[in-house]
Amino acid sequence: MTPLEYLSARHDQILDELIEFARIPSVSTDPRHRDDMARAAEWVAARLREAGPIDVRTIATGGHPVVYGEWLGAGAPTLLVYGHYDVQPPDPLERWSSDPFAPEVRDGRLYGRGVSDNKGPMLIPLKVAQAFFATRGALPLNVKFLFEGEEEIGSRNLEPVIAANARLLRADVVLSADGAMWRSDEPSITVGCRGVSVLEFALTGANRNLHSGRYGGSIANALHAMAEIVASLHAPDGRVAVAGFYDDVVPLNADERRAIADLRFDEAGFLSDVGAPAAFGEAGYNTLERQWVRPTLEVNGMWGGYQGEGSQTVTPNEAHAKLSCRLVPDQDPDRVRALVARHLETHVPVGVTLALGGERHAARPYRIPSDHPGLLTAERVLEQVYGKKPLRVRMGSTLPVSELFKRLLGIDTVFFSFSTTDEAFHSPNEFFRVHRLHEGLEAWARYWESYARSEQ
Amino acid sequence: MTPLEYLSARHDQILDELIEFARIPSVSTDPRHRDDMARAAEWVAARLREAGPIDVRTIATGGHPVVYGEWLGAGAPTLLVYGHYDVQPPDPLERWSSDPFAPEVRDGRLYGRGVSDNKGPMLIPLKVAQAFFATRGALPLNVKFLFEGEEEIGSRNLEPVIAANARLLRADVVLSADGAMWRSDEPSITVGCRGVSVLEFALTGANRNLHSGRYGGSIANALHAMAEIVASLHAPDGRVAVAGFYDDVVPLNADERRAIADLRFDEAGFLSDVGAPAAFGEAGYNTLERQWVRPTLEVNGMWGGYQGEGSQTVTPNEAHAKLSCRLVPDQDPDRVRALVARHLETHVPVGVTLALGGERHAARPYRIPSDHPGLLTAERVLEQVYGKKPLRVRMGSTLPVSELFKRLLGIDTVFFSFSTTDEAFHSPNEFFRVHRLHEGLEAWARYWESYARSEQ
Repeated sequence: MTPLEYLSARHDQILDELIEFARIPSVSTDPRHRDDMARAAEWVAARLREAGPIDVRTIATGGHPVVYGEWLGAGAPTLLVYGHYDVQPPDPLERWSSDPFAPEVRDGRLYGRGVSDNKGPMLIPLKVAQAFFATRGALPLNVKFLFEGEEEIGSRNLEPVIAANARLLRADVVLSADGAMWRSDEPSITVGCRGVSVLEFALTGANRNLHSGRYGGSIANALHAMAEIVASLHAPDGRVAVAGFYDDVVPLNADERRAIADLRFDEAGFLSDVGAPAAFGEAGYNTLERQWVRPTLEVNGMWGGYQGEGSQTVTPNEAHAKLSCRLVPDQDPDRVRALVARHLETHVPVGVTLALGGERHAARPYRIPSDHPGLLTAERVLEQVYGKKPLRVRMGSTLPVSELFKRLLGIDTVFFSFSTTDEAFHSPNEFFRVHRLHEGLEAWARYWESYARSEQ
Repeated sequence: MTPLEYLSARHDQILDELIEFARIPSVSTDPRHRDDMARAAEWVAARLREAGPIDVRTIATGGHPVVYGEWLGAGAPTLLVYGHYDVQPPDPLERWSSDPFAPEVRDGRLYGRGVSDNKGPMLIPLKVAQAFFATRGALPLNVKFLFEGEEEIGSRNLEPVIAANARLLRADVVLSADGAMWRSDEPSITVGCRGVSVLEFALTGANRNLHSGRYGGSIANALHAMAEIVASLHAPDGRVAVAGFYDDVVPLNADERRAIADLRFDEAGFLSDVGAPAAFGEAGYNTLERQWVRPTLEVNGMWGGYQGEGSQTVTPNEAHAKLSCRLVPDQDPDRVRALVARHLETHVPVGVTLALGGERHAARPYRIPSDHPGLLTAERVLEQVYGKKPLRVRMGSTLPVSELFKRLLGIDTVFFSFSTTDEAFHSPNEFFRVHRLHEGLEAWARYWESYARSEQ
């Protein structure tokens, strides 16, 4: 019996295990679920031990534990498998058609919180390991498993864990069970994601809100100043007007642009989904380019003065804004933050003063080299499984783990997830397509064998 | 004995009466003081009856009553005296040096809530009437007294009362005990005030806040659009950029501008008081002109997106703003509102839609004709009392009663108050200069005689 035959014979059993896993309400953000988090970590550790002679340990963190396991009997190469066992809160509960923590299958989809993000996808490597041990007594390569319990709350304790265990975690490539395919009807691989850099600032005019009758017109209004400075951040054509902002952006070559242009993208359907009257963004780029490969500067919040019912005729003395930039290779979060700060400092309107602030929340953009053997393996395997060459796509959001692994361990991440972006993770009625579970099991088994061969 | 001698002999007694009046906590905004409001209205009615053969009645309103009295034994002319018996709340109590409702004299000043705004000033005409009746058995002219109890809450029921009693209230001029002199060290008369017009609006992009990673850069950010449209409302030189905004502004003539330029104004002291780093306003005008005689457009509140701690990387889909314009003769509040609405409608940025809203809160600007006999009388009398010609000043804020009297009754208002703008009304430790009470009694008595003579 081959590992693939072993897995095929156990489809229903593996689905039942996923249901059992998803019954544990491992909501990392909610202190009332602390025991459930511990229970979920134990469940994962138990499945690892059950899979074969894997050396399993739990690594305590400042928050929820990391479950780690390794089997190093193959000499080389070494994979680091990443996934997370925590889930988003199920709220709003009333919008679920079935109990989020009593998963049920309807029309070939398993509905339940966390089934797509990330319990279904992360169960796959556990069962693939079990299949290899059961049929061959060994894995085709060394595998290290790292499952965290804080992905949904910003992986806040992962950086120190990785930094403190750099030697333990050493590997050739990270194979991530997290991430998601772009579409349900054709295979894709995410080859890059944007970084992020945030900044807050305030403008202050007078020492208090002033009566707009008595003083209005003679003292700067902090909200007018805020509007002026925020408007100065973009040119009318949608470009970011901060000097130097685009300096470190690596331009896409003709092939890369053509690859994006060749993707089917339903612009009308997109606008109808988000409900916007028109698309808007940087001139010279289409919607997918704006979302994937161009950097942005966005004001996430802005406020000042009276926000209550009716009117209050004040000349506001304070205005606040929070902003964030999405970054693309090779922009550096700290450098971009400094450029934006410099722009603000040199554009302070008359009559107000500027104060910069905000936490340092930054992540570098990430892109896997286009000839990375781990990426080529993924393409080869997806073509075998789906019968067609997968799309290479980018992701507009930030996947901080890939940047962490690159920065702290020097290794690249291949996103090899079998969830799909339309599966309502973070929303009510999250689901996971059951056939994706089967395809994922086959693909991961093929990947391990194929990567082991290619690297020998 | 003349009326002036009668009043001089009773300075202490009148101060005691003011103290008695100010002990009543007639806080119009606070329902717990409803009985105190009724008690204050009765106190005023009793003083009117006590003053002489005045026909006194209480006019019920949707809120606190209006106290009305009239003596029409002189044939002509007829004065309408205006004042209010309600006061601001005393909060914050801990910042008072003495009990706000147990008035006490320190260093020639009476401290207590409402003593300056408006109980001290409005007691003056009551005692002047008493002096004329006691010494001459008659007033030198017809007098109608109108004291409201809702000035501190926007005179919300005064308009219907005036409209329903237009015949009863017919007069040649309003002499207002409310208002305040500009400075304590020289006499002044307020000859105009600005009007007001308010408007709210919202901009909406997508149908929900969007993830700034996934969508950022491809859909309009409502806050960027808000900044752009708000910035478009002013030119860099501080002028309002709304087309037609200045069309109906009556330019000041050279004499009026010189009169303002001749006023001593301590610009450095003003900036230090409000704590602003620099003055800012419409190019070509000085600070007093900007506050008194130039119209403004001010954003009073503006908000959207995330305002909490830390960062939330959303592309906000909604932005809100409240704005108000201060108006000068001959701007019309509804026309200005329409011009601003038109500007907003023609400046909506790509990718968002505009919704206009907000209550109709409007008041016309007011200016008394510069040769009005009631104004000339006031100047004559103040020169007699103070030995120097009073300044003619404007007021940047809106005094809606003058506009109400003009619009509903067709008569002008002379502001003849003896409080001063520095007397901390609306703040802790409100006070009234005791010598101003004496000067006010003399001035009002002289005014009645002088105006009666000039109009016969």
